Amino acid sequence: MRNTPTDPLPLAQALIRCPSVTPADAGALGVLEAALRPLGFTCHRLRFGEIENLYARRGSTGPHLCFAGHTDVVPPGPAEGWRDDPFSGAVRDGVLYGRGACDMKGGIAAFVAGLTDYLAANPDAPGSISLLITGDEEGPARDGTVKVLDWMAGRGEIPDMALVGEPTSRVKLGDIVKVGRRGSMTAWITLFGTQGHSAYPQRADNPIHRLVRVLHRLTAQPIDTGSQFFEATTLQVTGFDVGNAANNVIPGEARAMLNIRFNDLHTSASLTEMLHAALRAEEARYEMRVECSGESFLTQPGPFVDALRRAVLRATGAEPALDTGGGTSDARFIARHCPVAELGAVGSTMHKADECVPVAELRDLAGLYRMVIEEAFA
Amino acid sequence: MRNTPTDPLPLAQALIRCPSVTPADAGALGVLEAALRPLGFTCHRLRFGEIENLYARRGSTGPHLCFAGHTDVVPPGPAEGWRDDPFSGAVRDGVLYGRGACDMKGGIAAFVAGLTDYLAANPDAPGSISLLITGDEEGPARDGTVKVLDWMAGRGEIPDMALVGEPTSRVKLGDIVKVGRRGSMTAWITLFGTQGHSAYPQRADNPIHRLVRVLHRLTAQPIDTGSQFFEATTLQVTGFDVGNAANNVIPGEARAMLNIRFNDLHTSASLTEMLHAALRAEEARYEMRVECSGESFLTQPGPFVDALRRAVLRATGAEPALDTGGGTSDARFIARHCPVAELGAVGSTMHKADECVPVAELRDLAGLYRMVIEEAFA
Repeated sequence: MRNTPTDPLPLAQALIRCPSVTPADAGALGVLEAALRPLGFTCHRLRFGEIENLYARRGSTGPHLCFAGHTDVVPPGPAEGWRDDPFSGAVRDGVLYGRGACDMKGGIAAFVAGLTDYLAANPDAPGSISLLITGDEEGPARDGTVKVLDWMAGRGEIPDMALVGEPTSRVKLGDIVKVGRRGSMTAWITLFGTQGHSAYPQRADNPIHRLVRVLHRLTAQPIDTGSQFFEATTLQVTGFDVGNAANNVIPGEARAMLNIRFNDLHTSASLTEMLHAALRAEEARYEMRVECSGESFLTQPGPFVDALRRAVLRATGAEPALDTGGGTSDARFIARHCPVAELGAVGSTMHKADECVPVAELRDLAGLYRMVIEEAFA
Repeated sequence: MRNTPTDPLPLAQALIRCPSVTPADAGALGVLEAALRPLGFTCHRLRFGEIENLYARRGSTGPHLCFAGHTDVVPPGPAEGWRDDPFSGAVRDGVLYGRGACDMKGGIAAFVAGLTDYLAANPDAPGSISLLITGDEEGPARDGTVKVLDWMAGRGEIPDMALVGEPTSRVKLGDIVKVGRRGSMTAWITLFGTQGHSAYPQRADNPIHRLVRVLHRLTAQPIDTGSQFFEATTLQVTGFDVGNAANNVIPGEARAMLNIRFNDLHTSASLTEMLHAALRAEEARYEMRVECSGESFLTQPGPFVDALRRAVLRATGAEPALDTGGGTSDARFIARHCPVAELGAVGSTMHKADECVPVAELRDLAGLYRMVIEEAFA
């Protein structure tokens, strides 16, 4: 074991200097590949559509730990919002600035640094370590992680556990380990009635009144009060439109749009049935289209989550909180295959101008990731 | 008293031949004036804005019975919908065809015919008879009956009772006497919330949910169950619009439009307060604009309604039903000043193509109006 840990800063800067705004790769995966090959990794560049992806593995036996992440970044936005060129990787006062510094080129560099030190100390490490790095996480997520996982499944390379390096820490490095995410679905409803004159409502059938009753039924009570690791499911009506300008005309149809963020007590199928039941109660004709951008998932406490807790405790002196809040990440795709959790830098500046990460935090993250590998194989 | 009653047909045809689509007069009031002057009427042509009106009175003492009506008509619509020129006053198989035949040039001609016979039999008739004929009943009704009544009030010529000659009969001449009308008002509501991301509803305030609650509160129960002469008040939500296309955005405001048809248990002011109360229950910021196109009114049973009932019984052998259904008429303006009721031809073809009235019905109506005058002065 070397005494001086590997510094993740140079690799983080090299990655930031590739302006890899989705779907562009801009050389980012080449930089990463060049860092992994000397460590004994076999690299597979996988192109789907216009997206470059990288799958790199060292070892051929189990257990198999996969680090998952992305080199694509969101656009920097107006240049005048930034103090530095967002793709220069500037360091000022011990802080690394740049698009992707925390989400999540910094995280990838920290993992490679921690991995380097782990392998130096354990040259005959058991099992396998892989990296699944996509260029389509910030985009539509169609030609990235999902397709790489399909390819891996076809080769029998599904890992036993996966760590997603998203910047999930809230205030202090390691204060949060995300062990799941809520699901998200949207429904578009059109309810049909019978048009008529508002002076003779008995000859018409007002679809607005029916839709108001449906939505009142759906929003009057909470859907649930949350579960062990999840907040309560929320249903928000984000649209209601009729498009009738005549005050004395009862319109023939009314449309609503609903967005539901749901916990592990539900699936998009069970919630779709809940919506149908609320609509059927009106005994009116309706149409409904549903899109689910991700089911909820939860990695139950067990050996992998325990390994992450031990690593955080060793690295920071405190137990992490297990959390499932926030938006979606590619972890939702991996969860279909194996236990997955998310642990990374403090994400307060992600997607913002002057995105940054303290260099010291990056180095601490590298040490944390090394301990994660140690504990995962312990 | 002459033995052969005056035939209303020639005057009805002469009036129909003036294409007096609102706001045009097209000579109609001149035709009427020429029929009234020989009967001893003093005629006042009153022009307000682009509207011609006629006020004609015979006698200067009370009691004063006023016949109210209009010579303007709605547009005939596509010519191919009609068998005859809609302004030709064609008679086929004993039926008079033309725009205004029943609504309500036929009614005016019938009143003048009945009046002619009444005056012939009662040359020293007591009291006064007047006609208030507007050219702005089918239009915005701003420069018609309302302004003529103001002018009459200024001269101390408000009548003691008024008969509106709208085609109110349902199936058989005289089966209905309208003794009131429902009121109508429209409210436009904008309810304000706080915009936000649908994944974090706790940081937003969804105005759609609040507006759904307000409208549910207003539509869940009937407002009333009707009164002695009125149907139940009805509230119809005729619009609900948000205009938000993003399924994951909670919008900042939501708008609704409501139309209320109300009976004599309410006023537009009391209903406006009911809407405010339903909105205040949300403790949210809102704006509301209300327009009332007419308060409800009811002419209580009394001497004038009794006179109409006796006249109908004598003319048809059956008691009329007292009714308040249907849309609005200028009677709502007259009701502010004196007892008013509506009695006229069967209105089944009004506003339609091939509008018509049987010539025999027109003659029966002339006889009925003569009896109304007799009973009103009895």
